[in-house]
Amino acid sequence: MAASETIGVGMAGYSFMGAVHSQAWRTVHRFFDVPVAPELVALAGRDRARTEAAAARMGWSAAETDWRRLVERDDVGLVDICTPGDTHAEIAIAALDAGKHVLCEKPLANTVAEAEAMVAAAERAAASGVRSMVAFNYRRVPALALARELVANGRLGTVRHVRAVYLQDWLTDENSPLTWRLDRTKAGAGALGDIGSHIIDASQFVTGQAITGVSAITETFVRRRPVATSSAGLSASAGTEYGDVTVDDAALFLARFTGGAVATFEATRFAAGRKNAMRLEVNGSRGSLAFDFESMNELWLHEEDIDAAEGGFRRILVTEATHPYLGAWWPPGHGLGYEHTFTHEAADFLTAVGTGTDPEPSFADGLRVQRVLRAVEDSAAADSRWTPVP
Amino acid sequence: MAASETIGVGMAGYSFMGAVHSQAWRTVHRFFDVPVAPELVALAGRDRARTEAAAARMGWSAAETDWRRLVERDDVGLVDICTPGDTHAEIAIAALDAGKHVLCEKPLANTVAEAEAMVAAAERAAASGVRSMVAFNYRRVPALALARELVANGRLGTVRHVRAVYLQDWLTDENSPLTWRLDRTKAGAGALGDIGSHIIDASQFVTGQAITGVSAITETFVRRRPVATSSAGLSASAGTEYGDVTVDDAALFLARFTGGAVATFEATRFAAGRKNAMRLEVNGSRGSLAFDFESMNELWLHEEDIDAAEGGFRRILVTEATHPYLGAWWPPGHGLGYEHTFTHEAADFLTAVGTGTDPEPSFADGLRVQRVLRAVEDSAAADSRWTPVP
Amino acid sequence: MAASETIGVGMAGYSFMGAVHSQAWRTVHRFFDVPVAPELVALAGRDRARTEAAAARMGWSAAETDWRRLVERDDVGLVDICTPGDTHAEIAIAALDAGKHVLCEKPLANTVAEAEAMVAAAERAAASGVRSMVAFNYRRVPALALARELVANGRLGTVRHVRAVYLQDWLTDENSPLTWRLDRTKAGAGALGDIGSHIIDASQFVTGQAITGVSAITETFVRRRPVATSSAGLSASAGTEYGDVTVDDAALFLARFTGGAVATFEATRFAAGRKNAMRLEVNGSRGSLAFDFESMNELWLHEEDIDAAEGGFRRILVTEATHPYLGAWWPPGHGLGYEHTFTHEAADFLTAVGTGTDPEPSFADGLRVQRVLRAVEDSAAADSRWTPVP
Amino acid sequence: MAASETIGVGMAGYSFMGAVHSQAWRTVHRFFDVPVAPELVALAGRDRARTEAAAARMGWSAAETDWRRLVERDDVGLVDICTPGDTHAEIAIAALDAGKHVLCEKPLANTVAEAEAMVAAAERAAASGVRSMVAFNYRRVPALALARELVANGRLGTVRHVRAVYLQDWLTDENSPLTWRLDRTKAGAGALGDIGSHIIDASQFVTGQAITGVSAITETFVRRRPVATSSAGLSASAGTEYGDVTVDDAALFLARFTGGAVATFEATRFAAGRKNAMRLEVNGSRGSLAFDFESMNELWLHEEDIDAAEGGFRRILVTEATHPYLGAWWPPGHGLGYEHTFTHEAADFLTAVGTGTDPEPSFADGLRVQRVLRAVEDSAAADSRWTPVP
Repeated sequence: MAASETIGVGMAGYSFMGAVHSQAWRTVHRFFDVPVAPELVALAGRDRARTEAAAARMGWSAAETDWRRLVERDDVGLVDICTPGDTHAEIAIAALDAGKHVLCEKPLANTVAEAEAMVAAAERAAASGVRSMVAFNYRRVPALALARELVANGRLGTVRHVRAVYLQDWLTDENSPLTWRLDRTKAGAGALGDIGSHIIDASQFVTGQAITGVSAITETFVRRRPVATSSAGLSASAGTEYGDVTVDDAALFLARFTGGAVATFEATRFAAGRKNAMRLEVNGSRGSLAFDFESMNELWLHEEDIDAAEGGFRRILVTEATHPYLGAWWPPGHGLGYEHTFTHEAADFLTAVGTGTDPEPSFADGLRVQRVLRAVEDSAAADSRWTPVP
Repeated sequence: MAASETIGVGMAGYSFMGAVHSQAWRTVHRFFDVPVAPELVALAGRDRARTEAAAARMGWSAAETDWRRLVERDDVGLVDICTPGDTHAEIAIAALDAGKHVLCEKPLANTVAEAEAMVAAAERAAASGVRSMVAFNYRRVPALALARELVANGRLGTVRHVRAVYLQDWLTDENSPLTWRLDRTKAGAGALGDIGSHIIDASQFVTGQAITGVSAITETFVRRRPVATSSAGLSASAGTEYGDVTVDDAALFLARFTGGAVATFEATRFAAGRKNAMRLEVNGSRGSLAFDFESMNELWLHEEDIDAAEGGFRRILVTEATHPYLGAWWPPGHGLGYEHTFTHEAADFLTAVGTGTDPEPSFADGLRVQRVLRAVEDSAAADSRWTPVP
Repeated sequence: MAASETIGVGMAGYSFMGAVHSQAWRTVHRFFDVPVAPELVALAGRDRARTEAAAARMGWSAAETDWRRLVERDDVGLVDICTPGDTHAEIAIAALDAGKHVLCEKPLANTVAEAEAMVAAAERAAASGVRSMVAFNYRRVPALALARELVANGRLGTVRHVRAVYLQDWLTDENSPLTWRLDRTKAGAGALGDIGSHIIDASQFVTGQAITGVSAITETFVRRRPVATSSAGLSASAGTEYGDVTVDDAALFLARFTGGAVATFEATRFAAGRKNAMRLEVNGSRGSLAFDFESMNELWLHEEDIDAAEGGFRRILVTEATHPYLGAWWPPGHGLGYEHTFTHEAADFLTAVGTGTDPEPSFADGLRVQRVLRAVEDSAAADSRWTPVP
Repeated sequence: MAASETIGVGMAGYSFMGAVHSQAWRTVHRFFDVPVAPELVALAGRDRARTEAAAARMGWSAAETDWRRLVERDDVGLVDICTPGDTHAEIAIAALDAGKHVLCEKPLANTVAEAEAMVAAAERAAASGVRSMVAFNYRRVPALALARELVANGRLGTVRHVRAVYLQDWLTDENSPLTWRLDRTKAGAGALGDIGSHIIDASQFVTGQAITGVSAITETFVRRRPVATSSAGLSASAGTEYGDVTVDDAALFLARFTGGAVATFEATRFAAGRKNAMRLEVNGSRGSLAFDFESMNELWLHEEDIDAAEGGFRRILVTEATHPYLGAWWPPGHGLGYEHTFTHEAADFLTAVGTGTDPEPSFADGLRVQRVLRAVEDSAAADSRWTPVP
């Protein structure tokens, strides 16, 4: 059952996303029958000492201090981009043009223009069998993959309502430090781009529909913060100097979908007590779904067909062998965690690479999300006026 | 402990609201030390036989076929208005001008103009000690009264987010009948006025702040329905003739509050599987609250002050003797139901009447909600553009 | 729809149970089509002033200082016993022998012998059409009535497991006062009799099976407490004198049912944070049920027939018009409270009285519970040895 | 940060436990600063082809068809026993006597006598610095490790109640096949040994107290089943031949703890709809805890110190960096899964091995659980009579 072929992976970035992607590359072929097994060939970062330490710890054979080396190395067949958004376009386009398969973290880019250039590169590369995918990992939460199946099978009927929030609270404290995630030049946007992009993609994925327009407001509650003294790793501490927050703390918008559904969306880092509450509710003419990532192994399903006297939302523990991705793991009731979504993502991408098929979500899907993000910002800047998504 | 004085109550309307108000009038002085006890003097309806049957069943001494008789009768000191919204203004103004205290069901009126006239009448009457109140009963859910206390005491710090939905599903079926509630001339609005008004009032009540502006969309998913063959009572059956739905099925809007909070609101009758999910979440700089009427005896509280390793939302079972209204009822853990909110409302109104104080929510509070409803409709009609609430 | 006939009710006891029974008698005919409507004729207590005040407050026409007057009065047709357990047998037997219908609070008596005498009296009286019922009100929680229907209809298949707990915490504090409920001569038993009796009856009711034997332990965690300075009403305060607790604080037992199910039971007043957690879980070969009174409007149902990939416990909001007792009340999602279970009990008893049928649970049912209580105490006293229930 | 030393691991068994242990050995040093990193040297099984395939898939360098080879190999310093219980004693004693550190799956053995021999071997080996641990992985669920800390810090006061269940449902279907787990000669016991042992250990771990005696019943609901056609791996299919089930399907018992707490325990494979509901509730004089493995990232805490009007069970999302084991993983709200408990176990064992300290739970701890299992079986065989645990 072990894969007979291997592919060399080169990864840029070794912080939060780098750590979880590394675990996926180390693990995927131990559980999934992927046609090609990954080899952790090289890790790229800017600081030599840190990159080498990270490579040793995370199991990468080599450390590089320039991402361009990943593109140049013959033993790298797949480039995995885990850096901040302002570097995605340059790395991805170079890698694709060099014939490397590319997995790119979300959001795809910091601007629509960058995303469009990336899509163009992906299409050029696809002509010669090079694959690309954007890493919206929540599509690989088994409960959300099951949700999509149920909607696609008509189990909810006509979708009428979507209710999507992504609630975090790590900025609630006014003194938490100013990191790159609060810097528009690095991060592109704040809560909107970082976590809002997830619920935009997930809602389109689950419903199988696209957002056609939005009305929005954004807000920055705390406009100045102490500058972080260290930007490496997951934790940063506050210094004594202050700087401007140049991104949104929260973004809220109304939306309509191609199939006629109406929706509310909210992304915030100020929902005290909510740690990673990525929630999605869908109401249709035949049933409803509800999900909260804080209980990621559960999907709640209501069906109108059941007699009202016996109906109700039922808690499906998404841990059965017949559930998406679950056949590879443990017996029922033995839940998965956050990192598994990345292992599933790696399995799907390696399968696409090995079988010569197009993985999803494509860069084009990533561009669609980017256009929604842009429409949200445009609407917020124009008195919340309704703004179509091109 | 029994009240030494009594006041004659005359009530207009004997359907859903009439039934629950009757239970409140029969019950309030059995549990609360109100300064005046109610006497169920007369019930007014249009159909003599039905009104007489309702009066007998509900415990009213007399039945009248014209609400004007309630205003004329000397033995009626308090008029309770439980009729559809198009009649509120006329009845309330007549009763107030006749010196009767008035409790009026929500929303206060079908238009801002009507509501303004009612406020004027209430102010005239107040000069001679006549009291008026609008029946936003959710303020009397003990959990929401406790929520207001917590916010007022600074326990949540600066409020940053409000998330309010009122989800019902009784129109999910496209063949459910066309009743007066779907007729704009009777009901004024659809989900927006009926249940959206509740979450507008409740969010302003709990936060102690006012909504300053909105951006909105409304939707009517099913535009024609079979006309109801009977409009009486809680249940109606569908006939073979079809008619137009002239109100919204769902209303969604973004809002800002006077204190700087941003908010999402949604009212719908198409959320399959949600029966009466009036939910409110508030996030502040020091803590958060969450409530769902489907579990009305619970309030969830998160406090930032607790060490993160031990923090989390806690489920306060709002059944302690020290909780609002609970001292009158049962031991801890023995929950209350929907109708108790009306008994609490009656207790508060009778206390105001008996002690000569102004009850809340006043007609002016009702007018404020009416202005938000109007702003929502205006924004929805103007491309969702941001619309200030006067 | 109003009942054409009435029956005079005489009630003994005006504390917690008296208050909630009064509310039931005042309310039942306003919502249920009972063949006879109750009249609150007389309330009996020992202290004249207190009894008169309670009668005025609770709506009783007369106050009596001896329960024997209830039995003597011609205008009393139904005697309702809300006094401590040591008085049940004497009052009930006298009332039944005088031809009065009797509703008696639970547990039926303080000893098996008393209960047997009461059953004999009930059988004598039944011969002349006099009805008797023991007030296990949890049978009238709509969710538990629905649970019984589902089991009776075979929806759970063969019942294999019962898991029943009744958790309260009002004795957690070692200084909470010594009231009559902690005095064996008055109360008969502690947690076992007071709340253990409820889960014994409810589990037999829901499963339709009887407990055949038990193995038990009981425990009194705090053996001396400050004597209560006032024993009236729901609240009592602690004095400076100490006295012995002569009942159990907690009782735990294993059991087997006639149909082969095995069970755990636990009743305690020391479960810190649990206010009234009367919980019941049943697992069968075709499905499972779960209930918690702290969320009394919900029943959780799992069905094996549903494909495992879509199965799970579903939360039935027991507020549909088709649910037991719910047709009399409010629209879906508008929950009921604790006191409604007594109104349902009153409706069922009045229906039995008016239609000449035998109500349930009968005194014989109450005796069966008493025999389980006795077996539990016997087993606990005999090294937990298995003790059959006669 | 990468460990400078390594230790060769040899593992016996490659089914469910083998798969999850392999993931732990591959992963532990990528996230934890262990003093020695594991090398996956050799995997032992009986069938050559299957063992080699498993070794390749799971990342083991060599495959052996006799566990004795693990003991003999010089490059193996640690033996990990993942085989059925009837082989534990022989393998463990041989490995310990050969100076190999031993991690042994639970329950420690199939009999008290075997467990005693293993403890003796562990003590002999400890004298020369050889470490041994029994793999009660639930101790490494962060929520349960946090629970132990809270109890140890006095946060619950005097523990009065323990309520522990382990509910599965994979035998609910009467036709599910007869595997080794239903064979007393292989498995030692049924639900009692397999999952009952987990709640016995976990309850003693969390409370810091020992069980002093029990009263028990056991039950085998389905006594004959179709023999499994294949016993390998996690899944097995039923054949046409039938055989006897020689273990318990369910075990229920009452218990007392050294500190005076009383308890109910239940282990079953017939709780339809419960997949892996390992639940633990503890009530003390100052607070309470509740846990359910089906929501393994949550711990519920109630504290008596909080004003009753604001108190309640709070849901601690056990994903903060300050929680046990969590500093190694992801940001708050990004939950862990089942397999992480084994990675934590590996980290603790490697730390003990590398630092020369005694790991917990020791074989002596495993023996203590074994003695409780024995007492349960003895009591069940003796009319549920109270049976002290030696």
